[in-house]
Amino acid sequence: MAQAELKKRRRSDYNFHLEYRTRWSDNDMYDHMNNSIYYFLFDSIVNTYLMTHCALNPPISSQIGLVVHSHCDYFAPVAFPAVVDLGLRANKLGKSSVTYEIGVFERGQVEVKAVGEFVHVFVDRESRKPRVDGMGGKIRGGLEKIIASEKAKL
Amino acid sequence: MAQAELKKRRRSDYNFHLEYRTRWSDNDMYDHMNNSIYYFLFDSIVNTYLMTHCALNPPISSQIGLVVHSHCDYFAPVAFPAVVDLGLRANKLGKSSVTYEIGVFERGQVEVKAVGEFVHVFVDRESRKPRVDGMGGKIRGGLEKIIASEKAKL
Amino acid sequence: MAQAELKKRRRSDYNFHLEYRTRWSDNDMYDHMNNSIYYFLFDSIVNTYLMTHCALNPPISSQIGLVVHSHCDYFAPVAFPAVVDLGLRANKLGKSSVTYEIGVFERGQVEVKAVGEFVHVFVDRESRKPRVDGMGGKIRGGLEKIIASEKAKL
Amino acid sequence: MAQAELKKRRRSDYNFHLEYRTRWSDNDMYDHMNNSIYYFLFDSIVNTYLMTHCALNPPISSQIGLVVHSHCDYFAPVAFPAVVDLGLRANKLGKSSVTYEIGVFERGQVEVKAVGEFVHVFVDRESRKPRVDGMGGKIRGGLEKIIASEKAKL
Repeated sequence: MAQAELKKRRRSDYNFHLEYRTRWSDNDMYDHMNNSIYYFLFDSIVNTYLMTHCALNPPISSQIGLVVHSHCDYFAPVAFPAVVDLGLRANKLGKSSVTYEIGVFERGQVEVKAVGEFVHVFVDRESRKPRVDGMGGKIRGGLEKIIASEKAKL
Repeated sequence: MAQAELKKRRRSDYNFHLEYRTRWSDNDMYDHMNNSIYYFLFDSIVNTYLMTHCALNPPISSQIGLVVHSHCDYFAPVAFPAVVDLGLRANKLGKSSVTYEIGVFERGQVEVKAVGEFVHVFVDRESRKPRVDGMGGKIRGGLEKIIASEKAKL
Repeated sequence: MAQAELKKRRRSDYNFHLEYRTRWSDNDMYDHMNNSIYYFLFDSIVNTYLMTHCALNPPISSQIGLVVHSHCDYFAPVAFPAVVDLGLRANKLGKSSVTYEIGVFERGQVEVKAVGEFVHVFVDRESRKPRVDGMGGKIRGGLEKIIASEKAKL
Repeated sequence: MAQAELKKRRRSDYNFHLEYRTRWSDNDMYDHMNNSIYYFLFDSIVNTYLMTHCALNPPISSQIGLVVHSHCDYFAPVAFPAVVDLGLRANKLGKSSVTYEIGVFERGQVEVKAVGEFVHVFVDRESRKPRVDGMGGKIRGGLEKIIASEKAKL
C-alpha cells in the first residue's frame, strides 16, 4: 500500500489495542525511539493477542508462529518517556499464515507515527513445518475477529 | 539490607509509581522476564522522574546522571504479558550522588517480585566530573521529595 | 526482489563485513534469535560503516541518518550462542537517501539466514529535514564504495 | 570486595574469555553503553560457558540456572562501536548455587571498565526448586574449572 495511504491510518482502523510505556533504553543517540524497538512492540501486541484470544501458550502450544517477513514505515518520531498506543489488525489470513498490520500512535496525538506489517507462519512446534491442515481452529477463530473490514492491500 | 527485609516491601514503601507493560522479548528461554530487563525498568522510572520532577532534559541538560553501581535481588518471577508496577524512592542523597531503590510488583499481586538499587552521580555534561558545588538545585529539590521516610540502610 | 533471488545471496555479494556474537537475550521463547534483533544488527553494521568510512560522529555530526523504512525476509533460524557474519552493501543512492541491504550468515555455514533492507535519509541534525544540497560529500563518498555492482532491484 | 580492589582486575584474573562487538542500540542518549547492557553481556558469557563446558542445553536440560542476585560496579565508559573482552570466573561454589564474577574490558585497553557478579541457583526445570542433592555433576565439574584461584571475597 502506498505510504500516503498508510499515513492516514487512525486508531479506528484497528481492531485490538494496547498501550505501552516507552523505556529509557528505547531512545538511541538521536533522542528518539530506535527503529528496531518498533518491532519489539509489534511482537508484543501480536503475541498478547494470540495468548489472550487464540489460546496460544508459548512454552507448550503444539503450534507456534514464526516470523518470515516484517517491514515498517516510519512517519514521525516517538521519544521516551511517551506512552504509545498500538493498534492491531489482520490484513490477510491464509491456510497457515497471517499478515498482521500494526499502527503506532502516541498518547494524546491523532496522527499515526509508524505502520508495520509482519507475517506469521504457524508451524508444528517440533518439526517447525506448517501442518497439512494449516493453523489450528482456535488460532484461526481468534484471527478472524481482527480481520480488516476494508479490502486492505499493502 | 537483609533480603528478608527487602522481601517485605510493599507498594506503600515507595513514593513514585509507574506501570510498565512487559514485552514479548523480555522473556528469555525460561519463560520469565530476563534478569537484565529489570535494570531497563529501573532506568526508565528513574529517568521519567528526573524529567518530570527534576527538570532533567537528557539531550541538553548541563548535568546528567551516570550510573556507578547497581544491584538487584530477585524473589519471584514475572512473565510476559504481565503488567508490572514499579515503585521508586531515594534511600540516600549526597552532595553529587543519589541512591535510588526500586520495587517491582505485578499488577494484581501484593508481594514484591524484585528490589534493586542504583547510584547516580550527577556530573557536568562535558567534563563528566561532579561539580564542586554538587548536583543542581532542581535535581536536589525533586529528589528530596522521594527520600524514604524510614531510616533505610541497604 | 523475489525471495527466491534473495535466498541465493552469498557473503561475496556484500562489500563490507562484520561479525557479531549473539547474546543470551537475543533468543526468545522459541529458542532462536528473535526477529527484532536482526534490525539491531542492521543498525549496528550500518552505523559502524558510517563512523569508520563516512566520517559520521553520532553525537555531533551536522547531518544524521534517520530510518524511514525497513524490512527483512527470514529464511532460516539462528540461535545463541552462534556468531553471525553480516554483509553490507548499498542498493540505491539518492540525493539525500540511501538504501542498504544486509545479509545475515552464520559462522561456518554458506547459506544466508536472512536478508533485509533499510532506508536512511540524511537530515540536518537540528531541523531534522534533508538539506537542499543533499547528503554531505564524505557520506556520499563512503557510500559509493559499497554500491552493489550488479543492478540490484529489490 | 572494595571497589579499589576491583578496579585492579586484569584479564589474567579471569579463566574464560569471550569478545562481544557492541551494538548501536547499546548506547543510550549519553553516547555510552547503557548500564543495563552489561547484564546482558554477563548472561551471555555465563550461558555460553554453561552450554560449552557444563552440558547445559537451555530448552531441555532438567536443571536450569535462575538468577537470584546481580550487581555491577562501573568504573569507566565503553561506547559503540567498541569491541569488549569479557572475562569470567567463579568466586564461590555452593551445593546448588554459584557466584560468577565478570570483568568487562575494551579491546586494546588494559584497565577494567566494569566488574559485576551474579548468583545462579540451579533448580529443577519443572518445580523451579533446588534438588536435594544440589547441582548436577556436569555443571559442578565445569564450574570447578573456573573457580578463582585466589581467595576472592566480594
